[in-house]
Amino acid sequence: MKFTIDREEFVQGVQHVNRAISPRSTINVLTGIKIEADTDGLTLIGSDSDISIQSFIPVADEEKEYLQIEQPGSVVLQAKYFVDIVKKLPGDTIEIEVQEQFAATVRSGAVVFNLNGLDPEEYPRLPKLEEDQSFKIPQHLLKDMIRQTVFAVSSQETRPVLTGVNLEIEEGKMTFTATDSHRLAMRSAEVETDASLSLSNIVIPGKSLTELSRIMDDAEDLIEVVVTETQVLFKFDRLMFFSRLLDGKYPVTKNMVPTQTKTDVTLERNDLVQALERALLLSREAKNNVINVKTAGDALIEITSVSAEIGKVQENIEVASLNGEDLRISFNGKNILDALKVIDSDVISIQFTGAMSPFVVRPQDHDQMLHLFSPVRTY
Amino acid sequence: MKFTIDREEFVQGVQHVNRAISPRSTINVLTGIKIEADTDGLTLIGSDSDISIQSFIPVADEEKEYLQIEQPGSVVLQAKYFVDIVKKLPGDTIEIEVQEQFAATVRSGAVVFNLNGLDPEEYPRLPKLEEDQSFKIPQHLLKDMIRQTVFAVSSQETRPVLTGVNLEIEEGKMTFTATDSHRLAMRSAEVETDASLSLSNIVIPGKSLTELSRIMDDAEDLIEVVVTETQVLFKFDRLMFFSRLLDGKYPVTKNMVPTQTKTDVTLERNDLVQALERALLLSREAKNNVINVKTAGDALIEITSVSAEIGKVQENIEVASLNGEDLRISFNGKNILDALKVIDSDVISIQFTGAMSPFVVRPQDHDQMLHLFSPVRTY
Repeated sequence: MKFTIDREEFVQGVQHVNRAISPRSTINVLTGIKIEADTDGLTLIGSDSDISIQSFIPVADEEKEYLQIEQPGSVVLQAKYFVDIVKKLPGDTIEIEVQEQFAATVRSGAVVFNLNGLDPEEYPRLPKLEEDQSFKIPQHLLKDMIRQTVFAVSSQETRPVLTGVNLEIEEGKMTFTATDSHRLAMRSAEVETDASLSLSNIVIPGKSLTELSRIMDDAEDLIEVVVTETQVLFKFDRLMFFSRLLDGKYPVTKNMVPTQTKTDVTLERNDLVQALERALLLSREAKNNVINVKTAGDALIEITSVSAEIGKVQENIEVASLNGEDLRISFNGKNILDALKVIDSDVISIQFTGAMSPFVVRPQDHDQMLHLFSPVRTY
Repeated sequence: MKFTIDREEFVQGVQHVNRAISPRSTINVLTGIKIEADTDGLTLIGSDSDISIQSFIPVADEEKEYLQIEQPGSVVLQAKYFVDIVKKLPGDTIEIEVQEQFAATVRSGAVVFNLNGLDPEEYPRLPKLEEDQSFKIPQHLLKDMIRQTVFAVSSQETRPVLTGVNLEIEEGKMTFTATDSHRLAMRSAEVETDASLSLSNIVIPGKSLTELSRIMDDAEDLIEVVVTETQVLFKFDRLMFFSRLLDGKYPVTKNMVPTQTKTDVTLERNDLVQALERALLLSREAKNNVINVKTAGDALIEITSVSAEIGKVQENIEVASLNGEDLRISFNGKNILDALKVIDSDVISIQFTGAMSPFVVRPQDHDQMLHLFSPVRTY
């Protein structure tokens, strides 16, 4: 194999596929990046067997020539060093040549690296997916939906299916749901698809979505999502992101959302964020994050929190509206804060259904998102 | 004690004195900030017994009224939470009131914190220093001198005196020296002082200087430095920074600097920085940071580094001048890189005195700084 490539383009491709690679993988060849040159262009692959990322750099596009391939071939180079090496090379182009025993020579400017490569024949093949179940979604919207749900997945392996985000599609509407059984985040959006497409119990590992999100930007362009029994594939212009799906039955969450309300509060999101951040300074120290809220008159709620060691805090927030029964309730303030931080609206509403029942937080300006929380018993 | 204070001014003072506080101090009262209000203003103190920082906020200055003191007094409040609390308070002012049992009430906007305080009588007194040995230096210059030497102190406690920077004054010239016995950094500057002042073996802990540096900015104003047998005090406008000095005899370093040279190289600092960063990618993995340099013709030096696992790198750097004997030498590349990063000049010169002898790196445009290194044997 021998080729010369535009350095910037190569660095970007290497950084993208490196996101899939776990330096501590027990499968030696997966600690490397697979580089494959053929007449169409260069293909880079990184994988930790849960996630695989493939990046393609064409020989040229309308704008520019990226690549000159003198001799096709392939090699696997250790990712841990290779990423830093290509980032620090001095020239505008990089020449890579592989000789016997997968010995690779990397040249750029006055610099020559000789790197020990691995056998590309040992590298596992990427799954081939049948594309009969697929839909399209703008990149920025998918990125938002991930951000607004993935924080709520469970970090505990006791119920593995809860470490993923559940994807459902019904009548052109896609819904993401995440829950760790104490809180639930739900976000939906219209997508471009065949009206007959119906998907349920497609559970994508939270970690995969977090990595996917890091290689996405706020672009308007459509991403194609292909779903099979065991895999999901996100297809970008020059990038393919594969993730395995989680086994198991995701809990039915629709009936969990209360349909009536006893106490209804509307307030500025930022007022609540700041009050919770202050109150959490004390309850974080007590390690339980418990915050107490009570209604205090027509348009005030009182927030308190106590730590035996440090002391206590009490503050009143003016709310835009407060209707229904008087209420005293305690909850995990950090969970609420996590949710408030992904709500982009300035005003939120909270529907309580009693001190011991779950309550719902929503943005006030649209109904595509809700967050559900269990209260905490404090006696 | 009861007072109302400008929040911004108070936050800054609290953050400054907090730099001295170690949350893991075994002396309970030192985990707190001492707050003392009298008719002149408010004094804040933080200390870990090695470093003490005192910040003073006057009742008012020409610009503004900062403080209203209703009742003088003092209290100690736990730093770990107090700093975050005052930063997150919503109002422009903060009211603090201390009642019985050192119970403090902190009010700002609609927020009330009740905090458990500690007895200020238990707080150790700051040292009283006689000001007979003192000099003045511009803040920005002191900050530069710290940055340019403190990285070279030893991190090992086997020779405690090497964990500090040695301060000397002779005929109005101050010199900072730091060494870990493999490398040495030396920086000098003219200071404002009585011509008769002569100081030697004043060893300030590296950690103290690092903390001092963090509260300094690039201002032109003069700082007064007061030196005693066991303590040094840096006096700012409203801040006093005390550090204990290290016991023991600092090694005599003047004779260590070679006076003649066998091979002399002048080159762009940035060319060497980038080549070392690349070469260190491999030798860092081998954990020894060994870089090899050899002269390669009239105006070239060759840099190489090898890792059994990854491979090797070789590159040539064009130098501005190269005089004297041919040379092959190996050294700890990370040590050189640390020094190059604090040299602000674009061009540097290196004086080698043979493959097994110490060599000197200097900026080319002034003689107030030098860095000395031992080579490494590679056979």
